[in-house]
Amino acid sequence: MNKLLVLIQCRDEVGLVANITSILASHQLNIIAMREFVDEEEQRFFARISCSSALENTEDLRLELEKTLPKNSIVEVVPKVDKNIAVLVTKEFHCLSDILIRNYFKTLGAEVKCVIGNYRNLQELCEKLDVPFHYISHENISKEEFEYSITQQLDKYELDYIVLAKFMRIISPSFVAKYKHQIINIHHSFLPAFIGASPYHQAFNRGVKIIGATAHFVTDDLDEGPIINQQTIHVNHTYGAKQMAIAGREIEKSVLSKALELVFDDRVFVVGNKTVVFE
Amino acid sequence: MNKLLVLIQCRDEVGLVANITSILASHQLNIIAMREFVDEEEQRFFARISCSSALENTEDLRLELEKTLPKNSIVEVVPKVDKNIAVLVTKEFHCLSDILIRNYFKTLGAEVKCVIGNYRNLQELCEKLDVPFHYISHENISKEEFEYSITQQLDKYELDYIVLAKFMRIISPSFVAKYKHQIINIHHSFLPAFIGASPYHQAFNRGVKIIGATAHFVTDDLDEGPIINQQTIHVNHTYGAKQMAIAGREIEKSVLSKALELVFDDRVFVVGNKTVVFE
Amino acid sequence: MNKLLVLIQCRDEVGLVANITSILASHQLNIIAMREFVDEEEQRFFARISCSSALENTEDLRLELEKTLPKNSIVEVVPKVDKNIAVLVTKEFHCLSDILIRNYFKTLGAEVKCVIGNYRNLQELCEKLDVPFHYISHENISKEEFEYSITQQLDKYELDYIVLAKFMRIISPSFVAKYKHQIINIHHSFLPAFIGASPYHQAFNRGVKIIGATAHFVTDDLDEGPIINQQTIHVNHTYGAKQMAIAGREIEKSVLSKALELVFDDRVFVVGNKTVVFE
Amino acid sequence: MNKLLVLIQCRDEVGLVANITSILASHQLNIIAMREFVDEEEQRFFARISCSSALENTEDLRLELEKTLPKNSIVEVVPKVDKNIAVLVTKEFHCLSDILIRNYFKTLGAEVKCVIGNYRNLQELCEKLDVPFHYISHENISKEEFEYSITQQLDKYELDYIVLAKFMRIISPSFVAKYKHQIINIHHSFLPAFIGASPYHQAFNRGVKIIGATAHFVTDDLDEGPIINQQTIHVNHTYGAKQMAIAGREIEKSVLSKALELVFDDRVFVVGNKTVVFE
Repeated sequence: MNKLLVLIQCRDEVGLVANITSILASHQLNIIAMREFVDEEEQRFFARISCSSALENTEDLRLELEKTLPKNSIVEVVPKVDKNIAVLVTKEFHCLSDILIRNYFKTLGAEVKCVIGNYRNLQELCEKLDVPFHYISHENISKEEFEYSITQQLDKYELDYIVLAKFMRIISPSFVAKYKHQIINIHHSFLPAFIGASPYHQAFNRGVKIIGATAHFVTDDLDEGPIINQQTIHVNHTYGAKQMAIAGREIEKSVLSKALELVFDDRVFVVGNKTVVFE
Repeated sequence: MNKLLVLIQCRDEVGLVANITSILASHQLNIIAMREFVDEEEQRFFARISCSSALENTEDLRLELEKTLPKNSIVEVVPKVDKNIAVLVTKEFHCLSDILIRNYFKTLGAEVKCVIGNYRNLQELCEKLDVPFHYISHENISKEEFEYSITQQLDKYELDYIVLAKFMRIISPSFVAKYKHQIINIHHSFLPAFIGASPYHQAFNRGVKIIGATAHFVTDDLDEGPIINQQTIHVNHTYGAKQMAIAGREIEKSVLSKALELVFDDRVFVVGNKTVVFE
Repeated sequence: MNKLLVLIQCRDEVGLVANITSILASHQLNIIAMREFVDEEEQRFFARISCSSALENTEDLRLELEKTLPKNSIVEVVPKVDKNIAVLVTKEFHCLSDILIRNYFKTLGAEVKCVIGNYRNLQELCEKLDVPFHYISHENISKEEFEYSITQQLDKYELDYIVLAKFMRIISPSFVAKYKHQIINIHHSFLPAFIGASPYHQAFNRGVKIIGATAHFVTDDLDEGPIINQQTIHVNHTYGAKQMAIAGREIEKSVLSKALELVFDDRVFVVGNKTVVFE
Repeated sequence: MNKLLVLIQCRDEVGLVANITSILASHQLNIIAMREFVDEEEQRFFARISCSSALENTEDLRLELEKTLPKNSIVEVVPKVDKNIAVLVTKEFHCLSDILIRNYFKTLGAEVKCVIGNYRNLQELCEKLDVPFHYISHENISKEEFEYSITQQLDKYELDYIVLAKFMRIISPSFVAKYKHQIINIHHSFLPAFIGASPYHQAFNRGVKIIGATAHFVTDDLDEGPIINQQTIHVNHTYGAKQMAIAGREIEKSVLSKALELVFDDRVFVVGNKTVVFE
């Protein structure tokens, strides 16, 4: 018996769950866990159904579901396999190293095919942990050229996701468009507070008592994509902007790690500018 | 259209969800939200299905579900109505007043039919907030007589739950048996740490950096009943046992309040010594 | 022996702590707890020293400290006494009732001299809990007239603080100026996210995974005053704006309660647009 | 100007702070931050004073403090330098890798001189990250022989602390005695709940809604040493013992990391079976 994941997103209708589960039962699939959600405002239905199954061919099941469900439904029937990812970095090691260590011990739920950095200082760590590092500087070239070089590298791999693990360059709409809902960023603030540059300086100047971090899918609007996960920690008057940044690293690492776990486990649906997360 | 709640607990089987949802669909019930869980160790299935419905008579639906589901299934089809409760207290006001205020403004999800106290110091508050207070002292009488007097009062009301809001007397097995899975207690520690008396003194002596509180159903074994909700807060070396107790009150209040919200909203199933909580 | 609190705010200098503690020792004051902080950016020193003392006359001590400390130092030597406060409300009960209950059982660290509301629906609760309620409607009058009426009432009492416990009117600069650093507001968002109206709708529309609340001193800039305390809680895709608001109430209550505890215990210093909080 | 740390632990007396700070001032030391605490029950005084200083010879200062303070005072005047540590492991990588990565990027506050493991599976990671790994199996030898071999290795380095990063062997009193208050352990439960073996199975069987981890100094009594840091996370009925263990790893890593940061920064004092932590 294998594990199979049925992922559905469609217009809401009466009887959806009954219809879906009847089809699954007729294929001898045993539901292990099922999560569903109706976004009443958008009238959309989401389901993640984990089954055990002896099915060889899952395409028939997928087609039958698609035929029964409302028009334009998105149906996936996927075996539980690791994703392929690339990681983009600049200089900071804390998020990258967390990903590399989990990758090294095969607990990431994904395989890191390569790391691309616009500085060299994380190259050594990648190589020690057996992941190819591509150095692509942004200096003395246009953003188009820079992103073209990155894309050239990414295209060598069949990637499911691109993770921006403290990649400090703003990426262009065309780059975003090429990897729709596939780019995950960690932003070093509790969005939507402190959008943009130097959030820890902004937080310090405002005298906040809490700082946070946000993992989100990247869209054209800077720091405005669908939020996957957020966490916060308490700070106080003894924290300067630098201490906030140091404390913030721990929470950035933790938020990104949790977001990746959820995404790689197919628990995150994107709907407009929001996410449905079956935790 | 009314809101209807379908609550099911039974032996697990292939096709349960399909069977249940088909029956609901055949009765024109529209599923608003559905939560289910399979306890694989115990091979038990739990579901809480919230529907909108025009059904006048829900008994047919209940019987049909019962007939279709495995033997000894527990099936309830209930309209969403407030519960009736009694509250037992000793001297501390923080948990009781939180309940009374929510009751006063009708946001408790339950109606407090009466408060019973073995001291008089919470009587005035109850009366100000329009809830009958029955004073029953435990002094100079046996536990049997004490509990008999309490039972006499409780029996005047049709109660769904009895809340021990810092009731500092140990209750007898016969009392517990009379109200199986109906008595909810707030224990002033993070169980199973610091079972029994003076948990804050125990916590202080052990030098813990976190204290907590636990809301649980009461069973014969002291502090061993199924846990509904727990929360913790950080403490440090500057907290004496008294400061821990003061800080602990806030968390006790919060934990009990959350547990009651979950129970009154029919989100808590008891299975053996554990709970399934559809939060 | 009495408890005495020495509160100091002044320009930073070498030897401050030695000078201060020597003076305290020369007056036979025994330091129970001492907290100090140097804001290196602003070059300002803050101290809160809790002493036991047999001093009858504390004015000599205060003058001696003032003479020794740098020019323009702010020195207070105060016995530990309850503060006098007024509470302004609109319609929501959750923050007010928490304050009133603590006031009723004398654990607030302050005495509520009166409640002023621009609606009548909290009047009954105040009267039941023995606190005068003044109804002042904002309708059909100018903001000046409205605030003048409020001020007339407030002036009847010698107040230390005015608490805006979900008072949903924007107050004018002249009102703020009259009670500098004496007005405490609870804002129903994690500032600076979602400044202004309907923060829960803003939060829902942004799809955040965390909501929060902020207690702050009121200054002329709406929602921009020095922050005293903030807390956050997790939400998810199942929360509509209304559910966020309901969940938010618990955190608003908790944040305001903690902020008041800190302020009434003289643990909060204001410096520019920030606070130093000796928790 | 250098940074200097003055650490004091002694019997409490009137005027201690004045005396200490006067001596510091007389040596031209400028106090940057000062934390002190009086354990009233034990009548003990603790202080951690961070100064900037041009002192060449700190021994005079130390002696003068010692002479002035009550008998048997413990006084240290230390420059802020990295500690030397060894790490003991068994098979789990999550705590060790966190330490090794921080060590590799020099943000640990300590230098990892070696890792000792009773299995070989973490050897490769250590070597990749440039830390010597000593394999010492516990099999087919007595505990005395096993610990003797470990001690032989440890004695090659001048160590400040020994970190048990999921080292799953119980160590003997003689080993503990040799490194008093120098051995830090991470225990995979919220102590004192679930002392001993298989805490996640114990937690699962009890049906708790929260799990935690505890970092503590090791003493003779298993899991009974002074607690440095604890944290908790929420779990629910969907977590089996295995899922609890997986979720627990994150919190173990985080708790140990925070505890080491505090210890390596000289912020932790041990008093009896408790700690004073100047966070």
